[in-house]
Amino acid sequence: MKTEIRIGLIGYQFMGKAHSHAYRDIPFFFDTDVKPVLKAICGRNEEAVQQAAEQMGWESYETDWRALIARDDIDVIDIVTPNNTHAEMAIAAAKAGKHVITEKPLAMNVEEAIRMHEAVTENNVIHMVCHNYRYVPAIQYAKRLIAEGRIGKIYHFRANYLQDFIMSPDFPLIWRLNKEVSGSGALGDLGAHSLDLARFLVGEISEVVATTETFIKERPVGAMTGGLSAKVKGEEKGSVTVDDAVAIIAKFENGALGTLEATRFAGGNRNRNQFEINGERGSVRWNIEDMNKLELYLADDEEGMQGFRTIDVTEESHPYVGSYWAAGHMIGYEHTFIHLLYEFLQGIAKNRQPVPNFEDGVQNQAVLAAVEASANDGTWKRVADLKYS
Amino acid sequence: MKTEIRIGLIGYQFMGKAHSHAYRDIPFFFDTDVKPVLKAICGRNEEAVQQAAEQMGWESYETDWRALIARDDIDVIDIVTPNNTHAEMAIAAAKAGKHVITEKPLAMNVEEAIRMHEAVTENNVIHMVCHNYRYVPAIQYAKRLIAEGRIGKIYHFRANYLQDFIMSPDFPLIWRLNKEVSGSGALGDLGAHSLDLARFLVGEISEVVATTETFIKERPVGAMTGGLSAKVKGEEKGSVTVDDAVAIIAKFENGALGTLEATRFAGGNRNRNQFEINGERGSVRWNIEDMNKLELYLADDEEGMQGFRTIDVTEESHPYVGSYWAAGHMIGYEHTFIHLLYEFLQGIAKNRQPVPNFEDGVQNQAVLAAVEASANDGTWKRVADLKYS
Amino acid sequence: MKTEIRIGLIGYQFMGKAHSHAYRDIPFFFDTDVKPVLKAICGRNEEAVQQAAEQMGWESYETDWRALIARDDIDVIDIVTPNNTHAEMAIAAAKAGKHVITEKPLAMNVEEAIRMHEAVTENNVIHMVCHNYRYVPAIQYAKRLIAEGRIGKIYHFRANYLQDFIMSPDFPLIWRLNKEVSGSGALGDLGAHSLDLARFLVGEISEVVATTETFIKERPVGAMTGGLSAKVKGEEKGSVTVDDAVAIIAKFENGALGTLEATRFAGGNRNRNQFEINGERGSVRWNIEDMNKLELYLADDEEGMQGFRTIDVTEESHPYVGSYWAAGHMIGYEHTFIHLLYEFLQGIAKNRQPVPNFEDGVQNQAVLAAVEASANDGTWKRVADLKYS
Amino acid sequence: MKTEIRIGLIGYQFMGKAHSHAYRDIPFFFDTDVKPVLKAICGRNEEAVQQAAEQMGWESYETDWRALIARDDIDVIDIVTPNNTHAEMAIAAAKAGKHVITEKPLAMNVEEAIRMHEAVTENNVIHMVCHNYRYVPAIQYAKRLIAEGRIGKIYHFRANYLQDFIMSPDFPLIWRLNKEVSGSGALGDLGAHSLDLARFLVGEISEVVATTETFIKERPVGAMTGGLSAKVKGEEKGSVTVDDAVAIIAKFENGALGTLEATRFAGGNRNRNQFEINGERGSVRWNIEDMNKLELYLADDEEGMQGFRTIDVTEESHPYVGSYWAAGHMIGYEHTFIHLLYEFLQGIAKNRQPVPNFEDGVQNQAVLAAVEASANDGTWKRVADLKYS
Repeated sequence: MKTEIRIGLIGYQFMGKAHSHAYRDIPFFFDTDVKPVLKAICGRNEEAVQQAAEQMGWESYETDWRALIARDDIDVIDIVTPNNTHAEMAIAAAKAGKHVITEKPLAMNVEEAIRMHEAVTENNVIHMVCHNYRYVPAIQYAKRLIAEGRIGKIYHFRANYLQDFIMSPDFPLIWRLNKEVSGSGALGDLGAHSLDLARFLVGEISEVVATTETFIKERPVGAMTGGLSAKVKGEEKGSVTVDDAVAIIAKFENGALGTLEATRFAGGNRNRNQFEINGERGSVRWNIEDMNKLELYLADDEEGMQGFRTIDVTEESHPYVGSYWAAGHMIGYEHTFIHLLYEFLQGIAKNRQPVPNFEDGVQNQAVLAAVEASANDGTWKRVADLKYS
Repeated sequence: MKTEIRIGLIGYQFMGKAHSHAYRDIPFFFDTDVKPVLKAICGRNEEAVQQAAEQMGWESYETDWRALIARDDIDVIDIVTPNNTHAEMAIAAAKAGKHVITEKPLAMNVEEAIRMHEAVTENNVIHMVCHNYRYVPAIQYAKRLIAEGRIGKIYHFRANYLQDFIMSPDFPLIWRLNKEVSGSGALGDLGAHSLDLARFLVGEISEVVATTETFIKERPVGAMTGGLSAKVKGEEKGSVTVDDAVAIIAKFENGALGTLEATRFAGGNRNRNQFEINGERGSVRWNIEDMNKLELYLADDEEGMQGFRTIDVTEESHPYVGSYWAAGHMIGYEHTFIHLLYEFLQGIAKNRQPVPNFEDGVQNQAVLAAVEASANDGTWKRVADLKYS
Repeated sequence: MKTEIRIGLIGYQFMGKAHSHAYRDIPFFFDTDVKPVLKAICGRNEEAVQQAAEQMGWESYETDWRALIARDDIDVIDIVTPNNTHAEMAIAAAKAGKHVITEKPLAMNVEEAIRMHEAVTENNVIHMVCHNYRYVPAIQYAKRLIAEGRIGKIYHFRANYLQDFIMSPDFPLIWRLNKEVSGSGALGDLGAHSLDLARFLVGEISEVVATTETFIKERPVGAMTGGLSAKVKGEEKGSVTVDDAVAIIAKFENGALGTLEATRFAGGNRNRNQFEINGERGSVRWNIEDMNKLELYLADDEEGMQGFRTIDVTEESHPYVGSYWAAGHMIGYEHTFIHLLYEFLQGIAKNRQPVPNFEDGVQNQAVLAAVEASANDGTWKRVADLKYS
Repeated sequence: MKTEIRIGLIGYQFMGKAHSHAYRDIPFFFDTDVKPVLKAICGRNEEAVQQAAEQMGWESYETDWRALIARDDIDVIDIVTPNNTHAEMAIAAAKAGKHVITEKPLAMNVEEAIRMHEAVTENNVIHMVCHNYRYVPAIQYAKRLIAEGRIGKIYHFRANYLQDFIMSPDFPLIWRLNKEVSGSGALGDLGAHSLDLARFLVGEISEVVATTETFIKERPVGAMTGGLSAKVKGEEKGSVTVDDAVAIIAKFENGALGTLEATRFAGGNRNRNQFEINGERGSVRWNIEDMNKLELYLADDEEGMQGFRTIDVTEESHPYVGSYWAAGHMIGYEHTFIHLLYEFLQGIAKNRQPVPNFEDGVQNQAVLAAVEASANDGTWKRVADLKYS
């Protein structure tokens, strides 16, 4: 008999859909003793959340997140609402004894993140932050290769995350462009992914220097709740209060040198998330447009036959993918959530803390804070200083 | 209130999983009035089928396909068993008034295919054959471009479908290598996909010349039911009775020239399905390793700025993908089944025949027969001759 | 002191330029005891050939090729004129005791090729036919790997050579579209390259089946001497008497299966010459757009880490390239001629026969003849039958 | 009659070969009234320079560069010796009334560069610095597109130049690793190329922040004159005094944001020089491994059909390439020198200053100085401050 884990999800748009779908797919694809039950979904707009519940297979819905947390029949609170709501909800959930997972970035700032971490620790619940790209099989495989020493001492991490969806001056002032709701722009939305991968694959970042740009400083008001494809043209304009782009130079504790860039102004790049790692024994390259591939260079290959190998990370021996189709059959974006939430449920079942969790969230937030501080005054910032300030 | 369509699925392995998953995802991702109900799954091994039913969310199971077809609470029979079972099952289902879908190829030969087509026609049921690659969004988009005349008169179709999973001489004599069960080898398994895409995108094939090869003629016996990754090494050997590879030159009714190749002996190609079409106004290229991309060349582009465009077929304006995530977010193999089965259910709901259906199946089977006949005696074969023989 | 080898070149257009440049570069890049002397260049249009001689550095010119061959101060006759002139010139040169090299294809037919081969053999001169793509370093390296057994027994050779320069109906009826001058169309111009690579890398072809197409059957007359970029639009039209495209299935003596296609109607492919070879131990892929790269798959690579390696064939250990720049610095089309003519000169200096020579030319011509015969009547043709008919 | 321009070249190794070859090829490939005469080559080792003169076709040689400059029969001094020699030689040449070209970087520091610029200006000679990558046809074409406004206002320039030839700790302490001879490491050798392309394509850089790393701080002594492939293993070790890698964030005067990285520790990247530019109307991408290609994205392309086009920059309408073969025929590294030196000779003949010249050299040197200064103290540096300090 499988252990049921009862989920309560706050938020029902893009990420709500991604998480809902993943919970449904976990027991379908993976042999596990755990069975997630889609107990209740929560949103303020009753009509919309009711429809979402029906379409996505949730047993019930709530319009007040506090009511959701108060329910006895919920084991897990999953938070996919805008960034400025994470702390309050997560702390309340932890205090209610619920396991907690939030979308990334964990919080609006380090102070919030630390309080959240304290709450989950004190209440002894399982916690996780949804840096889903860690759970691309090719990236998990890269991690395995690095852990096995195949890459050797790492010299370089270079990453960029390029989008272009807000390039039109007519694109409206959505919540992601409002600092009070989102915390930051390309930095927290895109750069946070690259920074998390940096920490996952290379190690802790010790210091950074960075700069940010806002290329279009005013935009039409009127579609603050709009999704990624919102397009309105209004008379009234409001100020964009977040960064359109950020460039970062990072030094890692282990001596590696990092360069990172995130932007929403890279025309033609709909969602290009890519990195390369160079070590003394080898290199790996990945980009999300070929998300099932890992490019691997091994310095020990025979002379004359050296070169990046393009590995289809779809074999039975590769992480996670043995549960799907067959070698050479592609999986997509949604599978990253399946794998991450699978680990979350396994963590709950086995009472062990998965990664990335709120501790990672604190550390990521400290890096984001260091980036912002550096962008403000142009000097190098030590991550440790931002964390314990 | 949504119309429920109650599914009975025969077969529960690789393709059973693909179809089951698709039925679950259709109402999740698509706004439709139709709701598939996973009523019963059928397999001979009770323990296995029971477990499959549970894992994949079927309400019940059967161990006798005739019992499944006899059930009153089933509207649709979906057949994903080996090729030599399709005809009997599909005909029985049609006679019982069930809508029918089978995995490809439709049948073992033209005669079976014609009988199947007659059965569904006479019983007035909706029918479909699961050439899922037609439902890759990039291929649907290619079809749209061709239909709009963007490519112009077509001169060339060149395709190959390359795998390598049976290259080891120790790979066992699984059912796919036994002509009596599978009908043919690389031809029916892989080539059938390319031939169906050829018909879908270019038009009817009028004649072919072809050759087949069986590189490894004897293999270890003992794992006849094994899946794609079966690996046994036994003393006893049996004869491989199907083709390992097939090469085809095809002429289309509209004057286009086709070259097609399918093989299971292309080392390093786990599952490379690719084609290119050249027309008087443009060209398109696709390969499954980048299944969300379509390469498009337009001869009318400005001089000096001509070149293949790599289109991320993940925009809202592209077929199907608007129901998923956002531009630049990849989808995978399983979505091809979601789209095809969505069209099947819509066909049932609106009483209109989707494609590819049993009529396509007959035509495909005639092409396969022409290829086999040509491989046998080395001469050109007219498809029409094989169809009405 | 270096041995001078005095060259006489017949033809001064595209290929004349390629050969002239190569002779100049050989002593510059390669340490060799041989020094080619650009003695005389020959063409019928005195003004044009004089200008060519001056621009390309030839000491003198002739307007009558027989006069060139009669000169005492010439050791080598290099023939780059249209295909229907090769036999007469080469035989005359051989009889005059000159070493001979011709552009490909060697001749108009097998009979001519055999007579040419007899002439060079009887007169004991060094001979070569300019299948320059053999001398791409990446292809030489592929040959080395195959010879070392790294690929193992070969199962598949698939190649195509795609161009698009004559797709406009307004493109004129140049000599390449006139069978009496060119012998054939895409077959002899492009397919001949692929067939030569097939023989070089895989082995002798035993039989073929093929078809040809002429998509545009009439074209404007008026620019018969025009180059590749000729564009005229006239009232008068003439018949295209060669193939626009050819598709071939080939069986090799060693059991490998070949598929080849050549066309001038593949829009967007300016000059795409590509092939893939699959063997029991590995595969290689090459295409001319990345001519310095070789993709190599090795089945013996560790499980999970298998994949095509992209090798920059620009290292000192790779064929020829050690004479140029440094690893990662690209070379281009013209270097194929440098390498081939270097081997020609070395052959003369050391009195050894280089490859590909007239014997290869005879064999290639027999394959071309088999392809044409098959295209005529649609049946398989044995190459041996065409050779000794 | 063509005007002869008599060249004197100082240096005969890698770059000496590249320049010598280019001078030979200019009149071969281009219709020009100017004819370079390879008058004299200069090097300290008489035997080596004599051999180089013979192999590369120079009429004479010198062992003292002052003697070369003193010769009446020389019009141009071309300097390809290590960086610490450029200033003295170039100034002497200018004073002697010779036109001057130097390899990049122009000088060891801004002060030297300014003195050099003053010398050429005062003596009214034509001057150039050999940033050869500007003269890749694809990059010239990118420049044309930008100039025509096809890309619009530029938001981003991201570039990296990755090599791996010194990654082995056994690689010796060659001159390029000695600051006194080379000025800097990856910065001046590789980064200087990217920075020059940035200035060429985007505009002037206003300020930078940067960091440098030296991963291997001691290396075997003993092969100080060794080339790129030197490999010795000695007992004695010396200090590496230059950077192995550099990371830069740059702000352009026009508001664009730049990220640049150069390293010799990117395993598997033999010579990967790449950049991407994103503007409001389009984007371009280039990398040297596909140096004949330009990827172009146009935001105005029809919805649904947007994507990066891969343009073969080998058409007659593209810069320079009409003088070579035909569309789709690749050219290589050496052609960059042909084009640049062609412009140099045309500049001399027509008495107009080509680019990049010593003025660019001064500006580049100021950027390099700003990068070094920033790497030293970690703060942003204004380029203007470094230039006029």
